[in-house]
Amino acid sequence: MELFRDLPHEALVHAHACARIERLPKHARIFEQGARAERAYAVAKGSVRIIQTGSDGGQAIIRFIGSGEMFGTVPLFTDHLLPADAITAEASVVLSWSEADIVVLIGIYPQVSLNVIRVIGTRLIELQDRVRELATQRADQRLARALLRLIRNDGGDEVAFPLRRKDLAEFSGTTLHTASRMLSAWARAGLLTSIGRRILIHDRTALDSLAEGRPLL
Amino acid sequence: MELFRDLPHEALVHAHACARIERLPKHARIFEQGARAERAYAVAKGSVRIIQTGSDGGQAIIRFIGSGEMFGTVPLFTDHLLPADAITAEASVVLSWSEADIVVLIGIYPQVSLNVIRVIGTRLIELQDRVRELATQRADQRLARALLRLIRNDGGDEVAFPLRRKDLAEFSGTTLHTASRMLSAWARAGLLTSIGRRILIHDRTALDSLAEGRPLL
Repeated sequence: MELFRDLPHEALVHAHACARIERLPKHARIFEQGARAERAYAVAKGSVRIIQTGSDGGQAIIRFIGSGEMFGTVPLFTDHLLPADAITAEASVVLSWSEADIVVLIGIYPQVSLNVIRVIGTRLIELQDRVRELATQRADQRLARALLRLIRNDGGDEVAFPLRRKDLAEFSGTTLHTASRMLSAWARAGLLTSIGRRILIHDRTALDSLAEGRPLL
Repeated sequence: MELFRDLPHEALVHAHACARIERLPKHARIFEQGARAERAYAVAKGSVRIIQTGSDGGQAIIRFIGSGEMFGTVPLFTDHLLPADAITAEASVVLSWSEADIVVLIGIYPQVSLNVIRVIGTRLIELQDRVRELATQRADQRLARALLRLIRNDGGDEVAFPLRRKDLAEFSGTTLHTASRMLSAWARAGLLTSIGRRILIHDRTALDSLAEGRPLL
């Protein structure tokens, strides 16, 4: 749990004691864009899509949240307005804490607020990269970078989240048609295998070249 | 100073005593992308452009920093790697604190870390909006939204930073040619006046309509 990293054992016992634990099916909505933020969330098992819809109807996947990661927590510290929907991408276990409990935890263990800074700081820097990529790169570069970004951290070669092609298109800022066409071409070239909602990457070096804008050899 | 908001007077005296104060000309580089982060910065007077360059050469303005705002601080809490260049957009006064001083200030005044969370949380949510806009909107919508985002907070109608057309193009993720063409059309339609590097907005409602994707009446 990134929110409680580097905390003493008694802090983890305290955090566990006041956590709400929910077992949710696939496609369950955890919170809704525009609602008031009242809790801090973390995924214990499974994964969650964070999806933002603009007033013009445009929709983008802002982030995929995996096991151990927090979400929906930032607005507790800003304007209390949830900026996106959170929807389970598979059957998941979600933990959450009330704002009052978070305030108490931060008061006793200042490390919690340093953890929040590290987590949202890391995401801020990743979003800055995505803004630059969206502003300056072609769709194929962005799709290749999105796949590399979504590979599991455990050293495996599998994309860490169950993804529809629509998800990948929304995440990399391209159309479903373009994303499908590129994925099929890359599968034919042996770079990856796409089975149902799982994607296996076979050639990271080639994807990295594509992301850098170099042609496939 | 957003970094020291809601702090008691003695904290401000302490922060002032350990601040480094630099008076810099226009176009001075404050730090360089890729260098090690060692200080927390804030603009006391003037403004600063935060510019990121990709390994493929693509360049984007990530943010304009105005008076009272902090910058370059997030990597102190993450990987200590500066993700962008910071360059003055006009003659400016820049304050900075060593990492050791920030650690001491946070230890004495936990409110400082809550301020950091609020500031970077607000920017995270704004970047999420920009990611969605870049992924789903046309260039004219994004340029209109960029102008609205850059208007001064003091209720005036002037864009708060001295902007070249190239800056606006990089900030909204379009080409210099497209940005220039749109600004000229909007100036002819009476929505704004662009004099040198200053832009005055005359019709926020019309710009808001454009940003929402509605045609100009």
